[in-house]
Amino acid sequence: MARPTPISGFPEWLPHERMIEQHILDTIRNTFELHGFAPVETRAVEPLDQLLRKGETDKEIYVLRRLQAEEDDSEESVGLGLHFDLTVPFARYVLENAGKLQFPLRRYQIQKVWRGERPQEGRFREFYQADIDVIGKDRLPFHYEVEMPLVVADALARLPIPPIRIQANNRKIAEGFYRGLGIEDVTGVLRAVDKLDKIGPEQVHTLLVEQIGCTDEQARACLALARISAEDGSFADRVHELGAKDELLDEGLEELTRVVEAAREHAPGLLVADLRIARGLDYYTGTVYETQLRGHESLGSICSGGRYDNLASTEDETYPGVGISIGVTRLVSRLLGQNLLTVSRKVPTCVLVALPNEEARADCYRIAAALRRRGIAAEVAPEAVKYGKQIRFAERRGIPYVWFPQGESGGQEVRDIRSGEQRPADPDTWTPPAEDLYPLVTATGQ
Amino acid sequence: MARPTPISGFPEWLPHERMIEQHILDTIRNTFELHGFAPVETRAVEPLDQLLRKGETDKEIYVLRRLQAEEDDSEESVGLGLHFDLTVPFARYVLENAGKLQFPLRRYQIQKVWRGERPQEGRFREFYQADIDVIGKDRLPFHYEVEMPLVVADALARLPIPPIRIQANNRKIAEGFYRGLGIEDVTGVLRAVDKLDKIGPEQVHTLLVEQIGCTDEQARACLALARISAEDGSFADRVHELGAKDELLDEGLEELTRVVEAAREHAPGLLVADLRIARGLDYYTGTVYETQLRGHESLGSICSGGRYDNLASTEDETYPGVGISIGVTRLVSRLLGQNLLTVSRKVPTCVLVALPNEEARADCYRIAAALRRRGIAAEVAPEAVKYGKQIRFAERRGIPYVWFPQGESGGQEVRDIRSGEQRPADPDTWTPPAEDLYPLVTATGQ
Repeated sequence: MARPTPISGFPEWLPHERMIEQHILDTIRNTFELHGFAPVETRAVEPLDQLLRKGETDKEIYVLRRLQAEEDDSEESVGLGLHFDLTVPFARYVLENAGKLQFPLRRYQIQKVWRGERPQEGRFREFYQADIDVIGKDRLPFHYEVEMPLVVADALARLPIPPIRIQANNRKIAEGFYRGLGIEDVTGVLRAVDKLDKIGPEQVHTLLVEQIGCTDEQARACLALARISAEDGSFADRVHELGAKDELLDEGLEELTRVVEAAREHAPGLLVADLRIARGLDYYTGTVYETQLRGHESLGSICSGGRYDNLASTEDETYPGVGISIGVTRLVSRLLGQNLLTVSRKVPTCVLVALPNEEARADCYRIAAALRRRGIAAEVAPEAVKYGKQIRFAERRGIPYVWFPQGESGGQEVRDIRSGEQRPADPDTWTPPAEDLYPLVTATGQ
Repeated sequence: MARPTPISGFPEWLPHERMIEQHILDTIRNTFELHGFAPVETRAVEPLDQLLRKGETDKEIYVLRRLQAEEDDSEESVGLGLHFDLTVPFARYVLENAGKLQFPLRRYQIQKVWRGERPQEGRFREFYQADIDVIGKDRLPFHYEVEMPLVVADALARLPIPPIRIQANNRKIAEGFYRGLGIEDVTGVLRAVDKLDKIGPEQVHTLLVEQIGCTDEQARACLALARISAEDGSFADRVHELGAKDELLDEGLEELTRVVEAAREHAPGLLVADLRIARGLDYYTGTVYETQLRGHESLGSICSGGRYDNLASTEDETYPGVGISIGVTRLVSRLLGQNLLTVSRKVPTCVLVALPNEEARADCYRIAAALRRRGIAAEVAPEAVKYGKQIRFAERRGIPYVWFPQGESGGQEVRDIRSGEQRPADPDTWTPPAEDLYPLVTATGQ
């Protein structure tokens, strides 16, 4: 066959790059578990009607069909598509298993999702999301909306990456404000304002007046609201100065103030109230979040989410929730693409056991097994070639140690191939320095 | 919406079951890394022509289509399908990245795969595979065929599950033997003998005579070969007694003897030479493996693979490999379905910080953060209800410790809710016993 070529939008990494991605995924998962989130994994597919239920996402869905499906195959009539996020599948999972789950449920979910969008920088057709959500039965205390951004901030702070800046808003502020101004088509205004980044304030103004039917004054006020941002509670005063009065608005302002103040205590500069943040999806009802990687704002949000009250509900039951999702692949592709992270070696192996001759292979296996029993990753050289060649095998992969079953002393010896230092060693007791035990991921140049 | 129901063939687990699956996946991955395998992850999709290239798998493939794809959308003409295993995608990956990889390449890959087969016990439409492969450039030493089964045996031996029994064969034995008998349609005989389990020896005999054109004597010899199995090298003598002579046969017998003897030294009873094992896929050329979970033989093989010489090759280059794949979901579904494994709690949380009143929440966050900084998973109670109710919240989830910011002594105290013992504690120094730090997965009843 001819040499295959990549498929646009479906990123793949070299093994050492995948080690970096794994480290990021592991750190995120470990942080989620430290915060008491339990794991859930849902199937990759959902019935199409589920996927089309919420949001403006129908154009992005990959539909499945069995290659040999028969026309009259009734089970195919269900219509399955690949999930495009982890929130809609989780809401379905909660309804399906409600009787067996305990609420409030703290769950994390780290999986790939698929969207048939046109690929571009930071936008993929297959990508990892790492989500946390807390879902309650019938009700969910507000304080979880304060907690969510602090958990992802903890996760990302443990990685050797630039700091993040979370932007928070509250749907109640915009809704209450628009109503306070006497505007009825709240969703229409939200959608128009959500286009600010794409089309600019003048065109949004035009949209608001011509399509939504706002007065010039209303449109100006909506745009003024979207311009407000602050790292502390002062944003509330600036909203009040715009004159709109509404109970829902006051509730939203109070909630957002609590989010901002708590984040400020947690880590100053971490979170800013930004009343421009709308989030495209329809299902949010309270706090919403977006996140910038500082110095990489052009990448778009790497971590988004919000409060949703009506996503998981049957006629009898309702399960309000709040969640936030890290766009892992968007983050990783930027970090790898700009060579911002380095891994200390290209394989997990800490020790290469050199092979004096092919007959010694079983002995070498035993040495490697002894090292592994104590958690030291080891492999045996592929061939009994000259030692110089075996050392180069290790060097090319960044394996720090080569073990000689018969060293110059006649007994076993281990060599640090970076320093060249070689000394007698026993595979049942020798231990490498902690920084050599596992591959280390660090910021490049540090 | 109505309460959703499961989709047959797409298994999902409750959070505590997913914790068990995670533990199994983590143990397998950790073992692979200890053996020096580097991670690779490939996209979920492959071009259809790649998927249809090898083996009899066309009927099992899920084809993708964008819901809003336009008729004349040229990029759709590629035709993408979900991968049905991890070997074919890895072979493609090796060819695509050959210039950037170092050979021999030891890689592991743990991902879901999809097959549109009719679901039944142990057979799913979406399932996890955990693969290791070693791939060489131009050539691959035989000893890797000896090593592969020992690695997966190490991984599974670290889990609290019944012991396994690996069955090994070598394609060269059957091919050489059939040729030695004067049979030309070697593939035809392989396919017929592969049906032994399904249709029995008499019908295979009929197939061999009527479809493949074997003589009665040839058919008997083929069936006699398939009946041979042994835990040591004695199988070779029994093959020689059947009379066929062929160079390839001798090579296969010698190779299989080395596989059997090495496994016997590693763990007696672990591996048996079983000349009935054929593996359905066409691409194997040397050793092949299947694996039974003892006491659960009806489940089918939970770990299969083999040597392939021609899977990854262009006109100029060839990358022979050997690999083995653990059918994780098949294994997990049996272990969960028969309740063979237990996890010590239903959430990762080790400590629930009790909430005396809502005003104390920030203080409680600080206590939880102090515990987390030292790797102790902690969460704060959802509501400032009576302590008895907060303790029951922990009990229902199996959280072993409840932390009281103001205990009976007036200072902080921690209570082991299993023993009821409560004593003063400092979140900056207190450490739980090692067995309580993480959820423990054990065999049920032990």
